[in-house]
Amino acid sequence: MTVYLTRRESFCASHRLHSEKLSEEENRKLFGKCNSENGHGHNYFIEVTVRGEPNSDTGLVMNLTELKEIIHRAILDKVDHKHLNLDVKELKGINPTTENLARAFFSMLTPAVPKGMLFEVRVFETEKNSAAFRGEN
Amino acid sequence: MTVYLTRRESFCASHRLHSEKLSEEENRKLFGKCNSENGHGHNYFIEVTVRGEPNSDTGLVMNLTELKEIIHRAILDKVDHKHLNLDVKELKGINPTTENLARAFFSMLTPAVPKGMLFEVRVFETEKNSAAFRGEN
Amino acid sequence: MTVYLTRRESFCASHRLHSEKLSEEENRKLFGKCNSENGHGHNYFIEVTVRGEPNSDTGLVMNLTELKEIIHRAILDKVDHKHLNLDVKELKGINPTTENLARAFFSMLTPAVPKGMLFEVRVFETEKNSAAFRGEN
Amino acid sequence: MTVYLTRRESFCASHRLHSEKLSEEENRKLFGKCNSENGHGHNYFIEVTVRGEPNSDTGLVMNLTELKEIIHRAILDKVDHKHLNLDVKELKGINPTTENLARAFFSMLTPAVPKGMLFEVRVFETEKNSAAFRGEN
Amino acid sequence: MTVYLTRRESFCASHRLHSEKLSEEENRKLFGKCNSENGHGHNYFIEVTVRGEPNSDTGLVMNLTELKEIIHRAILDKVDHKHLNLDVKELKGINPTTENLARAFFSMLTPAVPKGMLFEVRVFETEKNSAAFRGEN
Amino acid sequence: MTVYLTRRESFCASHRLHSEKLSEEENRKLFGKCNSENGHGHNYFIEVTVRGEPNSDTGLVMNLTELKEIIHRAILDKVDHKHLNLDVKELKGINPTTENLARAFFSMLTPAVPKGMLFEVRVFETEKNSAAFRGEN
Repeated sequence: MTVYLTRRESFCASHRLHSEKLSEEENRKLFGKCNSENGHGHNYFIEVTVRGEPNSDTGLVMNLTELKEIIHRAILDKVDHKHLNLDVKELKGINPTTENLARAFFSMLTPAVPKGMLFEVRVFETEKNSAAFRGEN
Repeated sequence: MTVYLTRRESFCASHRLHSEKLSEEENRKLFGKCNSENGHGHNYFIEVTVRGEPNSDTGLVMNLTELKEIIHRAILDKVDHKHLNLDVKELKGINPTTENLARAFFSMLTPAVPKGMLFEVRVFETEKNSAAFRGEN
Repeated sequence: MTVYLTRRESFCASHRLHSEKLSEEENRKLFGKCNSENGHGHNYFIEVTVRGEPNSDTGLVMNLTELKEIIHRAILDKVDHKHLNLDVKELKGINPTTENLARAFFSMLTPAVPKGMLFEVRVFETEKNSAAFRGEN
Repeated sequence: MTVYLTRRESFCASHRLHSEKLSEEENRKLFGKCNSENGHGHNYFIEVTVRGEPNSDTGLVMNLTELKEIIHRAILDKVDHKHLNLDVKELKGINPTTENLARAFFSMLTPAVPKGMLFEVRVFETEKNSAAFRGEN
Repeated sequence: MTVYLTRRESFCASHRLHSEKLSEEENRKLFGKCNSENGHGHNYFIEVTVRGEPNSDTGLVMNLTELKEIIHRAILDKVDHKHLNLDVKELKGINPTTENLARAFFSMLTPAVPKGMLFEVRVFETEKNSAAFRGEN
Repeated sequence: MTVYLTRRESFCASHRLHSEKLSEEENRKLFGKCNSENGHGHNYFIEVTVRGEPNSDTGLVMNLTELKEIIHRAILDKVDHKHLNLDVKELKGINPTTENLARAFFSMLTPAVPKGMLFEVRVFETEKNSAAFRGEN
């Protein structure tokens, strides 16, 4: 009896869309105002979904307090109120697009979640833009 | 041509996370403030998704008025403005975690929805916590 | 230069609309399903607005971290995950309507906020129902 | 490494649920107030999900500015501030149920999105009603 | 002890911005796409605020069930799933701008609410556009 | 007959809470993680309220298209996708607290709005934090 359990958290960060593999001109053209030199920022939302069979004694797939703490330790403590291009070791060299954040956060969570339970990480940059990664090749 | 149709409803209820299979001490430790003796409550949201091919005459997978009435009769009439641990026959002996509610509501809806159409029941306890069940083993 | 600063917080609680000044029958008739014997619950939201001139050095009317802590100490620590009729000393004998909660929370905040700054307390029972109190006679 | 990228847009339109394959009486009975003769309207939201592997140079599945423009050209320019039964060539003869809109918009987007990338179109008629189509038979 | 009590309701309607006092050309120029001939529509939200001293026995400024019914009878029964320019007697000859709707709805509510209690009517056309009227000259 | 008309817009920006009138140590202590050296960011929302009597011919206090353009020219074109401490001439030397942004945006709008009509500017830093300025001394 597989149940999907989702926890939503938020963090505030700044970033700049800029790829080291492109020239200044290409970056400006491709990313437009998102390439603005001193960066801009967002109130990001992150939705982490784990799945499994609820424990027959507790009725829990995972304790939400524990899931919340895992998300904080693995991700939020590192990115909240930070500049994603400059301050986060795990994102070094990565252009912080929503797509890349979803993949990076999935990787950062993987060792912290019981094996086989992590199903999806969705990242909202704004109410209009989001990206999800499920570990699919 | 399969279309997924989702209806969102809400209800207000109180509950207490407390498993009869655990000791008082274990309940307190595991569920923390959610084990508070006199209970607490939520504005729950429930999203029911049915799927099927839209009828070629009407353009409907299911009439939303009918789906709304099914959700009311099968679930909301029994849980709205109630205490989930004390007042709901269908939840007797079940620890009302979000996971267990998603499964129980799926079961309560199953006989009321045309065979094969019920796809998913998602229950939001708060904006941050939700659980979904799709009848998967 | 008066600026109004608003902080939004939430808590989960159960309650029962029931006035000790009315008979059982009158309570049932007036409050309907909100009078359900074992109570029901809500995800309450509370919006606290303070006003004042921003400090010319800091640009702050009040430090939001401080305002958040005041709201937690004065209100949330007492009501979150509680039964408002049974568990909260400050609400004893008060029928926990949204109107009465707004007035009670205003009173509970008054001694904790610098004199003259508390402007309004708004309480949302659901997205559809809210009450605001400004200390007006 | 497949990432799902979702863009949310909105448009305001009027419509009337009315099937040419049903009699006046059948339409009235089936669609009730949604069959009101002069139509009614909604603030529709549309969520378009594309999927693919992020480009290793740019970190993008698709440039969101491009995706936004595609949605505008293929759908919004034709339906925003319009009457869906009367003004939209692509919807002629189609009863504009949410289910049919999801399918029609999927078809309208298909030639505009790189082959194989369009994953899902979800249409919200209100916060409570939505339909999704994934091109599944 | 004045408390402000707010009830939020919604309705779906179509309308066309078009003033009988302007020429076709002036209407087109002033209202742009909102002047589209066959109309468009919205999920409107209406927030009605009444104020007064909570009754010392009941703790209520007004029973929310009663306020809800008043709003339905005075406004929603007349406008929900209707075309505001064509179907609503109370709006005949009125250009249904958000400003005019706020004033008209205030007038429609006035005889239905106990004298002196109606404080404000706010109408949301979309999440981005709203107008409020307080009966001020 | 005074009507209040509100338009909601959004922008994405980065900022750092840091006052030039305080030492490094005082800034760190007062603003905590909001003082993080490379800044962080938000999806800001701004609500601009104008008031006046609706024109008897058009039914408008102000054309929303015009109000939207005014907000874009006076504010959004200068702050969207920018760093508020580094990139915005109008905010030079101002600690970008929500309070100071509300005041600065009110000043930036004043010359662009017809005299006497600007009523309030509210700035949301997050869903939880907002500040409003009405030009009051």
